Amino acid sequence: MVKVTFLPSNKTVSVPEGSSILQAAIVAEVRVESTCGGKGTCGKCKVQSPVKHLTPRSKIETRFLSEGELEDGFVLACQRHLQEDTVVAVQEHKDAFSRKTGLKRAKENLVIAPSISKYFLSLNPPSVEDQLPDWERVTNALPIKDVPFDRAVASSLPSVLRQEKFAATAVLDNNELVAVEPGDTRDRSFGLAIDIGTTTVVTYLMDLNKGLVVGNAAVTNPQTVFGADVISRINHASTVPEGLHRLQDKVMSGINSLIAELCEQHKVRPEEIYQATVVGNTTMSHLFLGIDPSYLAPAPFIPVYRQVVEVKALELGLKILATGKVIVLPNVAGYVGSDTIGVALAAKIDRLSGITLAIDIGTNGEMILSGNGKIFTCSTAAGPAFEGAEIRCGMRAAEGAIEGVQIHDDVELTVISNTKPRGICGSGLIDAVSEMVRNGVIDVSGRIASKPAQLEKLSPKLQERIREGEQGKEFVLVWAKDSATGEDLILSQKDIRELQLAKGAIMAGVQILLKQMDLEVNEIDRVLLAGAFGNFIKKESALGIGLLPRLPLERISAIGNAAGDGSKMALLSVAERERATNIALRAEHIELSKIQEFRDLFLKSLNF
Amino acid sequence: MVKVTFLPSNKTVSVPEGSSILQAAIVAEVRVESTCGGKGTCGKCKVQSPVKHLTPRSKIETRFLSEGELEDGFVLACQRHLQEDTVVAVQEHKDAFSRKTGLKRAKENLVIAPSISKYFLSLNPPSVEDQLPDWERVTNALPIKDVPFDRAVASSLPSVLRQEKFAATAVLDNNELVAVEPGDTRDRSFGLAIDIGTTTVVTYLMDLNKGLVVGNAAVTNPQTVFGADVISRINHASTVPEGLHRLQDKVMSGINSLIAELCEQHKVRPEEIYQATVVGNTTMSHLFLGIDPSYLAPAPFIPVYRQVVEVKALELGLKILATGKVIVLPNVAGYVGSDTIGVALAAKIDRLSGITLAIDIGTNGEMILSGNGKIFTCSTAAGPAFEGAEIRCGMRAAEGAIEGVQIHDDVELTVISNTKPRGICGSGLIDAVSEMVRNGVIDVSGRIASKPAQLEKLSPKLQERIREGEQGKEFVLVWAKDSATGEDLILSQKDIRELQLAKGAIMAGVQILLKQMDLEVNEIDRVLLAGAFGNFIKKESALGIGLLPRLPLERISAIGNAAGDGSKMALLSVAERERATNIALRAEHIELSKIQEFRDLFLKSLNF
Repeated sequence: MVKVTFLPSNKTVSVPEGSSILQAAIVAEVRVESTCGGKGTCGKCKVQSPVKHLTPRSKIETRFLSEGELEDGFVLACQRHLQEDTVVAVQEHKDAFSRKTGLKRAKENLVIAPSISKYFLSLNPPSVEDQLPDWERVTNALPIKDVPFDRAVASSLPSVLRQEKFAATAVLDNNELVAVEPGDTRDRSFGLAIDIGTTTVVTYLMDLNKGLVVGNAAVTNPQTVFGADVISRINHASTVPEGLHRLQDKVMSGINSLIAELCEQHKVRPEEIYQATVVGNTTMSHLFLGIDPSYLAPAPFIPVYRQVVEVKALELGLKILATGKVIVLPNVAGYVGSDTIGVALAAKIDRLSGITLAIDIGTNGEMILSGNGKIFTCSTAAGPAFEGAEIRCGMRAAEGAIEGVQIHDDVELTVISNTKPRGICGSGLIDAVSEMVRNGVIDVSGRIASKPAQLEKLSPKLQERIREGEQGKEFVLVWAKDSATGEDLILSQKDIRELQLAKGAIMAGVQILLKQMDLEVNEIDRVLLAGAFGNFIKKESALGIGLLPRLPLERISAIGNAAGDGSKMALLSVAERERATNIALRAEHIELSKIQEFRDLFLKSLNF
Repeated sequence: MVKVTFLPSNKTVSVPEGSSILQAAIVAEVRVESTCGGKGTCGKCKVQSPVKHLTPRSKIETRFLSEGELEDGFVLACQRHLQEDTVVAVQEHKDAFSRKTGLKRAKENLVIAPSISKYFLSLNPPSVEDQLPDWERVTNALPIKDVPFDRAVASSLPSVLRQEKFAATAVLDNNELVAVEPGDTRDRSFGLAIDIGTTTVVTYLMDLNKGLVVGNAAVTNPQTVFGADVISRINHASTVPEGLHRLQDKVMSGINSLIAELCEQHKVRPEEIYQATVVGNTTMSHLFLGIDPSYLAPAPFIPVYRQVVEVKALELGLKILATGKVIVLPNVAGYVGSDTIGVALAAKIDRLSGITLAIDIGTNGEMILSGNGKIFTCSTAAGPAFEGAEIRCGMRAAEGAIEGVQIHDDVELTVISNTKPRGICGSGLIDAVSEMVRNGVIDVSGRIASKPAQLEKLSPKLQERIREGEQGKEFVLVWAKDSATGEDLILSQKDIRELQLAKGAIMAGVQILLKQMDLEVNEIDRVLLAGAFGNFIKKESALGIGLLPRLPLERISAIGNAAGDGSKMALLSVAERERATNIALRAEHIELSKIQEFRDLFLKSLNF
């Protein structure tokens, strides 16, 4: 075994000699950025460590690291294996969530009617003449019949009932008794709405009496150490022993730490959180429930389940009231999950008149088209480019990310937190490419200008930014002197191709959906953009590169973290929860890979 | 910490200095006989150990141990505390169960219709055209609707279905899917019937296809280390931190070892045991379910629950199929448990014509009187004397126990396993007292002969056996030279009083029950004696001392371990399980402590 200490967190772990630094980081629960899950294809797991304690340099490292970096002891955590005790320095960044918004809305037109209700009971103490068991003494006094027996609640009764002389409050979840509390506690009732993103997990502590958000907290999905995308996680679950269990554990402990934080902050006891609702994509839902996701990855992409699932918190290890229910909203298909149902719920797509297109671009891209009494869904693997994966200088929307780009004579940037830029996030990428197209730095086919006729139309400063890189032409967005990394930040021809593939898939998907209803693009009454992404992209730029259907700007609106809002609505109202199931049942899923036409439409949609 | 090694098992444990030997035995899981749970009142926890490693002799020891024993290093495990590392020799005896019988019967008139059923499924594999989730692929093919979702079964599906090309067998428990197995496994289906006695736990492995007992196994209830009677266990659960948890753990691991033994022996995998049924007295049921029994001990004796309870095996830690159901039959009251319901089921008391009295004398005494469409129950703390507790030389019906006594000119004994006697068990005690009454060694009031007029009617050998002991008169059953302990085995005046109290309580209970129906003793059509006890007592002796109602012998019969038979019946037939609930609901429980008349009847019933 060798000992590794990670800085700046100062966490030390022992791992078998020969483990990679990335593996050690997983054991230490230190987050090292990695989007390929250790395959050596993303080059993002850059850390610093004395090389003499490690296996020799790999060819892959020379591709991703500069000479200067190599000299300074930078290595890729997935490429270097531990031979001796050592120290590893990891760059830590502020979390992406500080920028997530979308807590508003949700309440309009929502009748607060959760399935949790409380009844105050003032019971007669037992006597030799009245030997009714504690359980029956309580349930006979309730206004409902046939309360199913719960072992844990029953076991709490002897002490709870005798604490306040048989005055107690029953907590019901529909007709189930989930807790009995001493005295009258009707004024306190809480629930937790959870939104499990592949990248970020958000929790909302809700007051079920008032229907209000008490507080919220978020954390980077701790499963990220096993890879940034769902495929890496599915692979981990299906190939590594105990992998599924570890992934479930990761997300559960992440959520549990958020619960502890919220409870501490708002003076709520975890046992006062009587119910939780969960949305997430199909893979996240499977992992959260500890259900084997192996066959979600290969075609034909088969999930294990798709209906709404209710499980007791204790069974999952979620640290709310042990007997409280955790309700995971239904999925539609392998790549259209309960997060999309949450979006549909929050967007009320089943209640809007006319034709509505909702798009949720996260790590994946899901689309819903509703109208004429129908609901169609599809999904594409379009997302990663927009979250910084597969893009040379890509990063999440966190401190130091270029989020806006304007190009006139030269490049002007907007950077998150106004620091020196470290990389570019989704909205910055779309802005940049849109501006590059508008200025002629890129032609409609996506090629970076190279012919003299193209170049001479550009300003000298822009011309200077176009150069031949290792992997073909590239455009320098930020010169080394102005960048936080001390290196040029560039967009490569390959980066632009990635964006083209993503937007081509989305546009082709939209057109396939429209065909199901025999509609033209201009018949769409509204386009709703869900997710943090939708909040931050410039609509003009998205239209500029053809990422969105060509429609008047006023028909396009961002609706924030609609998936999370859907989770909150399902918590606050049984009717909304039923609507979620109803939408999931009505939704007809279009599997794009079986549609012949998709490929043609995709190819036609690549151009700008 | 001090180290203690127990012989002959050679188990070594470390315990804090100052722990009693009894406490160390509990930690070591070595069974030391104790019926008072360490209070120093039973004198049964005799072990041998070098006294120099222990705290000094206590006064209590001089009361229970002879000079010779004290010299030989015998001590009471509850009285001596550990000061140094030491060795403790514990007497181990063959288990009482080898003598339990009663496996026959049960099947007559029983339609084998368990709630477990199996369906073979030959499914179409999924494709891009047919992306049905695994769970729906299975449940859609079943002949029942609305199968509730099960997380664990769902998670097993991806690998199970793909093992035999989507040929699989579904295991249903009513409308619940509890397992899916690869291939066609319809020919194998097992269940487990459990009977948790305060003293002995018995398990029956049942073939649910054939309705047969595959095998049975029993073990002394491992909770016995916390005391022999239910009151000691309740005290342990309610006063010792983690006490309830430990008691549950004890009985569960005892049963789990029986399951392992039965599975090994009969080539059955634990996952092929799809369901378990459980009977036990109300305290045992509470402890098995991990439900706080604290208020069962003090008046007014309030249980937490009494209905039938179904829990998943995993939740309880019972090592059958994790998703399989454990069904605990209903209780009637704090001291009339599901074991009594099992007796009622097996005895068919609800179907017999005329008046039936069923008596189950175990550690407690429960009685059921049925007839004229009514069912009444009551219970008395009558049992301990019959299981050897509270009796100076009492012991369980195990090797070396006097089980039969005849007195003519002198005493003639029958001893279990034909060894030298070690003590006397319930049936021996009843025989002995009955014979002593018949021969005038005891008068009708229960006093041992002392007046010359009484003594001179006895043979010289019998006269010799009557002497003045430390606690009053006593009768020597076995002289030291013939006893396995090397000491005289005696019956004291106090022992006889204990028996009088027990039989007085039972007879008074029977009379109270009869009064509910306005009946006389001779209107009882049959008396059914349940439990091992009923199998072994001589009916004549029981009648002789007035333990049973004075009725013609042919109306009295032993029905063996009827509680266990009831457990088996509930496993084999849903209808029988419903009957159990029906009987429990119909039964009217008479709490003897609230009946004024009980005391008078009790006093009147003390005489022989």
